[in-house]
Amino acid sequence: MKRREFIKRAGSGTLAVGAGMAGLKVAEAKPQIKWKMVTTWPKNFPGLGTGANKLAEVINEMSGGRMHVKVYGAKELVPAFEVFDAVSRGTAEIGHGAAYYWKGKSETAQFFSTVPFGMTAQEMNGWLYFGGGLELWQELYKPFGLIPAPGGNTGMQMGGWFNKEINSVGDLKGLKMRIPGLGGEVLKRAGGTPVNLPGGELFTSLQSGAIDATEWVNPYNDLAFGLFKAAKYYYYPGFHEPGTTLEAIINQKAYDALPKDLQSIVINACKIANQEMLAEYTARNPAALKTLVEKHKVDIRVYPGDVLETLRKYSNEVVEELAAKDAFAKKVYDSYMSFLKGSREWGAISDFAYLQARDKA
Amino acid sequence: MKRREFIKRAGSGTLAVGAGMAGLKVAEAKPQIKWKMVTTWPKNFPGLGTGANKLAEVINEMSGGRMHVKVYGAKELVPAFEVFDAVSRGTAEIGHGAAYYWKGKSETAQFFSTVPFGMTAQEMNGWLYFGGGLELWQELYKPFGLIPAPGGNTGMQMGGWFNKEINSVGDLKGLKMRIPGLGGEVLKRAGGTPVNLPGGELFTSLQSGAIDATEWVNPYNDLAFGLFKAAKYYYYPGFHEPGTTLEAIINQKAYDALPKDLQSIVINACKIANQEMLAEYTARNPAALKTLVEKHKVDIRVYPGDVLETLRKYSNEVVEELAAKDAFAKKVYDSYMSFLKGSREWGAISDFAYLQARDKA
Repeated sequence: MKRREFIKRAGSGTLAVGAGMAGLKVAEAKPQIKWKMVTTWPKNFPGLGTGANKLAEVINEMSGGRMHVKVYGAKELVPAFEVFDAVSRGTAEIGHGAAYYWKGKSETAQFFSTVPFGMTAQEMNGWLYFGGGLELWQELYKPFGLIPAPGGNTGMQMGGWFNKEINSVGDLKGLKMRIPGLGGEVLKRAGGTPVNLPGGELFTSLQSGAIDATEWVNPYNDLAFGLFKAAKYYYYPGFHEPGTTLEAIINQKAYDALPKDLQSIVINACKIANQEMLAEYTARNPAALKTLVEKHKVDIRVYPGDVLETLRKYSNEVVEELAAKDAFAKKVYDSYMSFLKGSREWGAISDFAYLQARDKA
Repeated sequence: MKRREFIKRAGSGTLAVGAGMAGLKVAEAKPQIKWKMVTTWPKNFPGLGTGANKLAEVINEMSGGRMHVKVYGAKELVPAFEVFDAVSRGTAEIGHGAAYYWKGKSETAQFFSTVPFGMTAQEMNGWLYFGGGLELWQELYKPFGLIPAPGGNTGMQMGGWFNKEINSVGDLKGLKMRIPGLGGEVLKRAGGTPVNLPGGELFTSLQSGAIDATEWVNPYNDLAFGLFKAAKYYYYPGFHEPGTTLEAIINQKAYDALPKDLQSIVINACKIANQEMLAEYTARNPAALKTLVEKHKVDIRVYPGDVLETLRKYSNEVVEELAAKDAFAKKVYDSYMSFLKGSREWGAISDFAYLQARDKA
């Protein structure tokens, strides 16, 4: 700590500064640590952007002001899809995004966001925190100097926005659709052209005809982007993103430089952000859905059963081919699939059996 | 801080203590704050007891040792069902249990644990954190000098352990069963006798014949108590506890005495414990279910559809009668039911539609 800073801090505290005390080191008085958080979301975007804000706020608050994390929206410091590199090289100390955005770095990363016909939000948390998932994710990001952590979850997503009906898999043929990650690979297998765009570019791209269709998140988020103004049909279920984990990535060196209690605060704040976002979506989606249907007259459609069956077949192929690419991908695949299998067996007599009893009426 | 303590702390820090510095107040050096946590669980009981331990650990760790929370199992400091009173009067600063254990204080408290045919774990988090639920809970506990917080969730529970088949609602008649909260009222309406016992007394009570049947939690917890040794049939779904929120209760005065950052750490640690427990159960139940079925040959049975329909009718009656008792109960009921209605509408095109597509095979 510099002497001038020490005097300034001491002046606002209860430490009586006397003559001859210059250079005295105080046991627990620490200079403020300033971190930058870069995100793949438009600044303050509901749910996603505010989820990143929440992560920063919780760190700032729990550290009693010893740390200050400042949040940057996409393009404010770096473009959305440069968040990974920016945190890896230390331009920012922490980032908020989703692992499937980095499939150019590692296709295996996609398992840590979401898998078509894969785990729900609750299952992802089980796998990541108690089923060995997070350790594999850490292993994958280590060579990049990054520590990953679950930092939010969207819950079950919607299928997406289309301007034509999807009555058969053939209707997906030739479709240029914004759909990231493994879901995009599934669309490709059905004859479509997947593109990835940051959220902030969706509305314009859809309205201009640069893309024919798009998925984004769920009613709360899709309403905020006004996607209903550019497409007629809103399909469900979002088989391609059944509980997408968002990620916080922390620069390893910046983390290592923190004292132990602040390290704990940063990692635990990610856990809080993870739960908070899912709870917020769970609370906000019903009203947004009502607004979309009643006010904006959106036509909600279910994917036909045989379309879902074909997409499930393609999904299995895509995921199995990914697992065959290298030994690490296979290791993650085995861990993911083994967890999912057990969870489906337990789910059959718990959540699924209950929802059937409660919601069939 | 006492001088002797200061010198001791300073000696282990980086502060060079010179002559004439006695009585010097250091800005950020604080004496350690010691809290006791009383719980309704057997000490270290998997999931529930270890969830309470986790809450304490996270507080201790994030506070950098400025706070130390020590956990007491049921009966170690006070009996399980005296936790509420003990924290209310300040015998302990924090407690861990479940709100439906306190229906003797307020029947309305039961809404904040679980409601038969009510919300799942994810929905409870949505309602409590973002749907106004937590504010109502705080209002209810305020006269007792307590701050409540969600402090864990079991997820979907099992129906319970029986020594006879449940083929009709008539089979519940005359049954003496351990089943707390509103689920117990539903059993009473079906002609049974509900009793409430702390978890630690279940096995002996069931084996001795003091009770005919019991529910507890889920495969992971029920296996740990060895309930399969005392009953033949294990029924699902646990319509009476579809996502039970456990609670942390904090003594208001003890909380008020904390500096702001430690207040934030305590409240946020409860959020971490809340998520962590659900993730742990999600990860551990599948293997426990397998062990119960394959190793212990437990007979897993589903409640017949018409039994569930009758129990749903009784559940509605019980909850509506509770809501009619006073204005505050009505307010909580209205908030809970309005959230549940919206969540079921959204759930029909999200989680439920997805599980149908994924798990019907």
